[in-house]
Amino acid sequence: MRRIGMIIAYDGTAYAGWQKQENGPSVQQTIEDTIERLFHETVSLMGSGRTDAGVHAQGQVAAMDFSHPIPTDKLKLALNSHLPEDIRIYQVFEAAEDFHPRFQAKKKTYTYRIWNGSVMPPSIRQYAVLIDHPLDVDRMNEAAALLTGEHDFRAFRSSGGMNLSTVRKIFQASFEVTERTEQGQEIVFTVTGNGFLYNMVRIMVGTLLEIGSGKREKDDIQKALDSGERTWLGPTAPAKGLCLLSVEYE
Amino acid sequence: MRRIGMIIAYDGTAYAGWQKQENGPSVQQTIEDTIERLFHETVSLMGSGRTDAGVHAQGQVAAMDFSHPIPTDKLKLALNSHLPEDIRIYQVFEAAEDFHPRFQAKKKTYTYRIWNGSVMPPSIRQYAVLIDHPLDVDRMNEAAALLTGEHDFRAFRSSGGMNLSTVRKIFQASFEVTERTEQGQEIVFTVTGNGFLYNMVRIMVGTLLEIGSGKREKDDIQKALDSGERTWLGPTAPAKGLCLLSVEYE
Repeated sequence: MRRIGMIIAYDGTAYAGWQKQENGPSVQQTIEDTIERLFHETVSLMGSGRTDAGVHAQGQVAAMDFSHPIPTDKLKLALNSHLPEDIRIYQVFEAAEDFHPRFQAKKKTYTYRIWNGSVMPPSIRQYAVLIDHPLDVDRMNEAAALLTGEHDFRAFRSSGGMNLSTVRKIFQASFEVTERTEQGQEIVFTVTGNGFLYNMVRIMVGTLLEIGSGKREKDDIQKALDSGERTWLGPTAPAKGLCLLSVEYE
Repeated sequence: MRRIGMIIAYDGTAYAGWQKQENGPSVQQTIEDTIERLFHETVSLMGSGRTDAGVHAQGQVAAMDFSHPIPTDKLKLALNSHLPEDIRIYQVFEAAEDFHPRFQAKKKTYTYRIWNGSVMPPSIRQYAVLIDHPLDVDRMNEAAALLTGEHDFRAFRSSGGMNLSTVRKIFQASFEVTERTEQGQEIVFTVTGNGFLYNMVRIMVGTLLEIGSGKREKDDIQKALDSGERTWLGPTAPAKGLCLLSVEYE
């Protein structure tokens, strides 16, 4: 049996998330079904982690056991020919037989896109959130810096997470203005960590946007880290701005 | 009667083009219908020019005669609240009573987005075309430079255009690499002219991509300009890569 690894990009708009579930089509299920249809082999695709409904990916990593002898380059072509256009296979590779995309992940990077202007440009409406009042990007970056390092992030989590430990290490967390037009500016938050709790990035963003709007003090981040209390933090930012950019392994 | 001007952005994917027509919903019709529903006034929206089915806009300019006294800022808000999210009104302004978005346009700028890589990133699949072989961007820019200046562009036109003169002036035409990732690069063609014939930008792009692929000589551009013969040129590039970026007036 081969263990096949994949790097997968998807537009999460039409999906109930990565993971197979009852209430709608998932990315995992769509790929598994395509493989079964093409190769008459039932596979189980392990992802590096779940992404929620509406969350996107540029670099989800997944693996499966597979007995069919098709070469990896042909498998990639076959999948991209038969998958819907909102799911694309960027890479297919032969993985070590014990490769596990979730347990062996060392770093994950997410991006969160914000359009800061009065009107959302139509072409990014599924991939960014609209903030129509001024944002202080420097202030957001000062607050984001408080998140870096190893902390107990139990305040930054929605119920439903199943992690035993809530300590995570954040290597990088910062905002960057990536585009300016007459209509506004695009601001992208990029965060890299050794792992993330359920909704952790979206709670970070919801909080940092309140700080950038002047509605909340920078120090609330520190208070949340110290106390573990969710009440020091802002709302969970909408799913559609979030994208799993990459997963790194040793 | 007021003459109201607007700057409009749209995702053309779901529309049969800007202009009202039989075979599907148009952007113009959608806005006119929304105004009629909101203000019980039948209006006729004149655009700066047609865009074909699937073509996008960031800066379409349109005007209408309108008798309702609503202030322009409130009109913008009302329209954006009731239009579908793939059409956004960026600006509403009081225009001179003889303002005509088409006849008075001095310059138009279009962009054309190309993803140069083996697989199309899902988030830009409606806004770019995929070119999966190497492109020589320098060579494309050398060829594009031949297009600048005043020329008879009759070779660069699809039948169906209604222009009497086929002489146009191109102020700028160039490619720029706007993004590089492990998966490929985004290349954007930007062209500014005093006007464009039917499908002119898409024929330019289809030709320049063949030149960048080594399938066609740079000099074919010159031969097409000199002879007026469409046979020296490449195919009309797909609609979805094209976007009307802006229209300038005196």
